[in-house]
Amino acid sequence: MTPGRPGSTPRTRLRRIPDKAVHERAVLHAVLDAGLVAHVSVADSGGQPYVLPVAYARDGERVLFHGSTGSRLFRSLAGGAPTCLTVTLLDGMVLARSVFESSMHYRSAMVLGSCTPVRGAAKLAALELITHHLLPGRWVDARHPSKKELAATIVLALPLDEASVKVSDGPPDDPDEDVALPVWAGTVPLHEAFGEPVDAPDLRYPLRAPDYIRGWTRAAR
Amino acid sequence: MTPGRPGSTPRTRLRRIPDKAVHERAVLHAVLDAGLVAHVSVADSGGQPYVLPVAYARDGERVLFHGSTGSRLFRSLAGGAPTCLTVTLLDGMVLARSVFESSMHYRSAMVLGSCTPVRGAAKLAALELITHHLLPGRWVDARHPSKKELAATIVLALPLDEASVKVSDGPPDDPDEDVALPVWAGTVPLHEAFGEPVDAPDLRYPLRAPDYIRGWTRAAR
Repeated sequence: MTPGRPGSTPRTRLRRIPDKAVHERAVLHAVLDAGLVAHVSVADSGGQPYVLPVAYARDGERVLFHGSTGSRLFRSLAGGAPTCLTVTLLDGMVLARSVFESSMHYRSAMVLGSCTPVRGAAKLAALELITHHLLPGRWVDARHPSKKELAATIVLALPLDEASVKVSDGPPDDPDEDVALPVWAGTVPLHEAFGEPVDAPDLRYPLRAPDYIRGWTRAAR
Repeated sequence: MTPGRPGSTPRTRLRRIPDKAVHERAVLHAVLDAGLVAHVSVADSGGQPYVLPVAYARDGERVLFHGSTGSRLFRSLAGGAPTCLTVTLLDGMVLARSVFESSMHYRSAMVLGSCTPVRGAAKLAALELITHHLLPGRWVDARHPSKKELAATIVLALPLDEASVKVSDGPPDDPDEDVALPVWAGTVPLHEAFGEPVDAPDLRYPLRAPDYIRGWTRAAR
């Protein structure tokens, strides 16, 4: 571990574009808190990696996510297989004068390590946290998991001990000879927003979409 | 390979939620064409996977993406290491009456295989395709890569021989006993859109953002 850079190890310390590396725990937390889906990877014995999208939530200095006991990949993760969890938020396009310098605005967090299954009373608490992150307010309304449903669910915790975060923002970075070209340069932001709730066709009562949904926003930067 | 399911192998054939598997090449292509960022994984000799976001484009029956010759992971991919490339588009939240059945609308494509470096004249053509996918119209305006820039860039091609695609849409799927609960259920769509172009602060001429940017849209489903 590098002093002053909590969670950075030789494996996660940024090797390239160091000015895009923001080694601050607060930024790591903010990126993880802003995302809805993470990409988790585990390799089989032949070195073939698999990458699957998962819903997740940050709980202090760890990430929680859940899957099915019927999933081979989740059973492998529950067994402690080395994993990498990456969250990427795409914030816009960067149009430099050259193709080479053109890029994207993004925020990305990468966590390396091994997962520990969350069991017992902590399992329900973890599912509440994940629900609160993805569907704030919903835990109070929705039917909670039954024993059978809990038994069919694997909840995993991945510590943030070994993690890195990169943030790319700001204008294009063209060298002087390119700035002299008569070509427009700039950025085009990309936004995400929730739309109007859509009733399920099998609603049996005259129910309105709950008010807490109106408060859902996708964090602007 | 399973007859009638091109690209599906025992490794990629969906093991769970088979009604969410849409084994059609057209859907695979559409998901890859709708995404901007893929998550690519490669494992080291100890079985530790790494997942990194990359810009990419589909070129017929393969995916093209590029990175730096300075990246250890890209050099490993260029050497033919087994990889997995996953593209996930998040389309909305699914609020079932129960926490257990609550989920997300998404489209996700997974490709397994090994990459081949793209070299020579095909390398520039590949970069044009990637630029056209991410920044349509830009290739005509922007300065093309120099020999030095090309030499610093690795372009990789991953064939779609072994690929799967999942699409989750539709209303919540609550069992009858849950439909009887007095709890609202439905979906909340999630949209993505480009904002107004922002001029680079070092613009040296009175240039307007080019018209082709106005045509950029994030594909609605």
